Amino acid sequence: MNNPQLNKNGELQHLLSTEGLPARILYAILDRAATFLDAGGHDEVRKVPLLHGKSIFNIFFENSTRTRTTFEIAAKRLSADVVNLNIGSSSTSKGETLLDTVDNLCAMHADMFVVRHAQSGAAHLIAKHVAPEIHVINAGDGRHAHPTQGLLDMFTIRHYKKEFHNLRVAIVGDILHSRVARSQINALTTLGVPELRVIAPKTLLPSHVDKLGVRVYHNMEQGLKDVDVVMMLRLQNERMQGAALPSAQEYFKYYGLTPEKLALAKSDAIVMHPGPMNRGIEIDSAVADGAQSVILPQVTFGIAVRMAVMATLAGV
Amino acid sequence: MNNPQLNKNGELQHLLSTEGLPARILYAILDRAATFLDAGGHDEVRKVPLLHGKSIFNIFFENSTRTRTTFEIAAKRLSADVVNLNIGSSSTSKGETLLDTVDNLCAMHADMFVVRHAQSGAAHLIAKHVAPEIHVINAGDGRHAHPTQGLLDMFTIRHYKKEFHNLRVAIVGDILHSRVARSQINALTTLGVPELRVIAPKTLLPSHVDKLGVRVYHNMEQGLKDVDVVMMLRLQNERMQGAALPSAQEYFKYYGLTPEKLALAKSDAIVMHPGPMNRGIEIDSAVADGAQSVILPQVTFGIAVRMAVMATLAGV
Amino acid sequence: MNNPQLNKNGELQHLLSTEGLPARILYAILDRAATFLDAGGHDEVRKVPLLHGKSIFNIFFENSTRTRTTFEIAAKRLSADVVNLNIGSSSTSKGETLLDTVDNLCAMHADMFVVRHAQSGAAHLIAKHVAPEIHVINAGDGRHAHPTQGLLDMFTIRHYKKEFHNLRVAIVGDILHSRVARSQINALTTLGVPELRVIAPKTLLPSHVDKLGVRVYHNMEQGLKDVDVVMMLRLQNERMQGAALPSAQEYFKYYGLTPEKLALAKSDAIVMHPGPMNRGIEIDSAVADGAQSVILPQVTFGIAVRMAVMATLAGV
Repeated sequence: MNNPQLNKNGELQHLLSTEGLPARILYAILDRAATFLDAGGHDEVRKVPLLHGKSIFNIFFENSTRTRTTFEIAAKRLSADVVNLNIGSSSTSKGETLLDTVDNLCAMHADMFVVRHAQSGAAHLIAKHVAPEIHVINAGDGRHAHPTQGLLDMFTIRHYKKEFHNLRVAIVGDILHSRVARSQINALTTLGVPELRVIAPKTLLPSHVDKLGVRVYHNMEQGLKDVDVVMMLRLQNERMQGAALPSAQEYFKYYGLTPEKLALAKSDAIVMHPGPMNRGIEIDSAVADGAQSVILPQVTFGIAVRMAVMATLAGV
Repeated sequence: MNNPQLNKNGELQHLLSTEGLPARILYAILDRAATFLDAGGHDEVRKVPLLHGKSIFNIFFENSTRTRTTFEIAAKRLSADVVNLNIGSSSTSKGETLLDTVDNLCAMHADMFVVRHAQSGAAHLIAKHVAPEIHVINAGDGRHAHPTQGLLDMFTIRHYKKEFHNLRVAIVGDILHSRVARSQINALTTLGVPELRVIAPKTLLPSHVDKLGVRVYHNMEQGLKDVDVVMMLRLQNERMQGAALPSAQEYFKYYGLTPEKLALAKSDAIVMHPGPMNRGIEIDSAVADGAQSVILPQVTFGIAVRMAVMATLAGV
Repeated sequence: MNNPQLNKNGELQHLLSTEGLPARILYAILDRAATFLDAGGHDEVRKVPLLHGKSIFNIFFENSTRTRTTFEIAAKRLSADVVNLNIGSSSTSKGETLLDTVDNLCAMHADMFVVRHAQSGAAHLIAKHVAPEIHVINAGDGRHAHPTQGLLDMFTIRHYKKEFHNLRVAIVGDILHSRVARSQINALTTLGVPELRVIAPKTLLPSHVDKLGVRVYHNMEQGLKDVDVVMMLRLQNERMQGAALPSAQEYFKYYGLTPEKLALAKSDAIVMHPGPMNRGIEIDSAVADGAQSVILPQVTFGIAVRMAVMATLAGV
């Protein structure tokens, strides 16, 4: 099967998932992002005219002010025109209607779509449908993938740890429902991280977790031992109301990242979180705001990485 | 009575309706739009600086992401600053309050208003109220008019058929509630279409339909015979729940455009639809996606036509 | 205690309140605003590139299309990139979460925040939290302050009356709940207005109103006598449903500004209102639209004043 993310010259055509992306593509994006980060100092004009005259549509079938904002800022810093469309899922219950919406936006001469959708595969569906000169970025589809999050996490790890081939990385929390975790695991594996751990209660792990090429831990004390990187996941409130979890207090007791638990990791381990954080549920404030936290740099890197993805797709 | 759309020099002052617009104005807009369309290729910077420094306000008292987007894109391609205001109808129950809102936006030095309102005449009311240097575009008012849709439809017909004076055109569907149909009928009549037909059940026709200068048909087989252009209308779901229509299935059976019914039209007839389509209700997917469909080009032309209207009003 | 609005060089660091701002700062903003107003004629490009490349975030925890629009226009006229965030109060029930949101936006390299929040002190909290290169403008916090409204009111008074030191000014209406009134009283006092009156029923006055340095009147006939400036306040509808007021009709009878009551002021008195107006409740249409009304010029000056505040904060 062809990789729908690459064109016949092996260049990035769409960014749908970190799965199936070769290491050279991942590194190219990280390298490009670094060039934008230099432009991010507060004392200079950061705007670059690379995408002047291009139209980028943020089509969000699932509401997310935060994620939409990061893409909007990235696009504006590239001087693109940005149009935000919050499309209620109600108006697009049928697959055909989704594609009719996309066809209409293409007819308005969209150059790029940033798509968020509650259904896994929505961005793939759109990418498969559009003309070759139009590019699609998956900004999160169901439980499937959130590749720009995965890429900014890789940028963050490389920024602080320089190399991937000598790292021990732990991902902690709701692996089962997390598109972020999927994107992280794929990218970390491709970039050659030799030891990748997941730490979660059984109810928050996918049934075939062993096939992901990770080591599974059910307790933090063992799982965090000697790791270089701790990647926390957000716990969605709705999980607590279902059968999956007893209570927020119980979760924090066993899986919340406290200074005590973090002390088991290497002394220079970094702590990451995709945000928004639930303080006191998956992470203690002392850790979130502590010296090992790189959670806010992740946000900054996220803008640079999204600029890099957009510029790469546009071929500029 | 003065034509509120033209200034004393006979130039376009506001675009409120296709009714009362002389053919020379219609042609001027279509010709201007063609110049923007050339700028619409995907390989070049399409943005033009014509309206740089101008402020265009999209004031939508009726929600419509799709229509708002087309005006937003047109304005941004002209380099205008665009401000979107979604004003719930609740906050403007009184006519005075509507004008107070407009006065305030004028005081912020608006150059142009794009107005959508559930009440017929709202755009006229605003146009009558504002200072002469401010221009109003009606983006749909009640059942009254949707002139940019009418104009883009004329652009589409001229694009494919070159001339109007030798055409047989059929408009199909809910004529009664459609501002699109009114704008189409006015423009087609002004541009000299010799035979204009409407096809609809009696419950979806206005009581004095004969005064519109159209031939009325109640069945598709007769109405579509030998036409050059088929203009489908969107069927609003709420009609189906009222007394006007038996059911979606019944409607599709009698008035849905299928390949079989379309075969009665001329072999080179084009099929148009203002969007969004209800596939399987007023139009069959085989037609919507078929070789005679020009539904997506309509969308592309719509951006160019809206750019042309804005540039014409701004006198640039 | 340090003034959180000024940096150690005595320059404006944040605009949180007119309280505590020295006259030299107020005058500097008014003078700067005048330079933008000259650029506001309708025949020229009004856009200036002063904030090109800067990112301004409108974070509105309380919905206000009107106020948000004035800041958006001001920022766009300065060529800044503007990102609008309407953040439901539900998602930020905890103070920490508010600051986490702010931290995230800072990490995206925000240069300036425009903040509206239902809680008094929210903008202060944010200003205290952010890094020194980031600036905060309070666009209304609870009952506390709305300083850009206060400043535009000062601009308006100076525009029509030239000086402050010889004026008699009356503020009329719901002083108790009005952040506008607080900002006006502070600014008028700082600028040396010798006689400042408030006119309101006892139920709409704060308990320690005498400490504000104003003369208190409970009827319009005495309070308006010989004043130079009448500053009306908006009466919020919810007040009428509470115990504070008998009815809209009663309120209009006693405190509504009619031509008859206005005749008691000086013949060249100006009438101001922050908008949106309740015609027939706090102000008669004959006054709102009359020769002494400067309500719409207030709106125009408001854009210039907000541009001046933004440019001043950015140090350009």
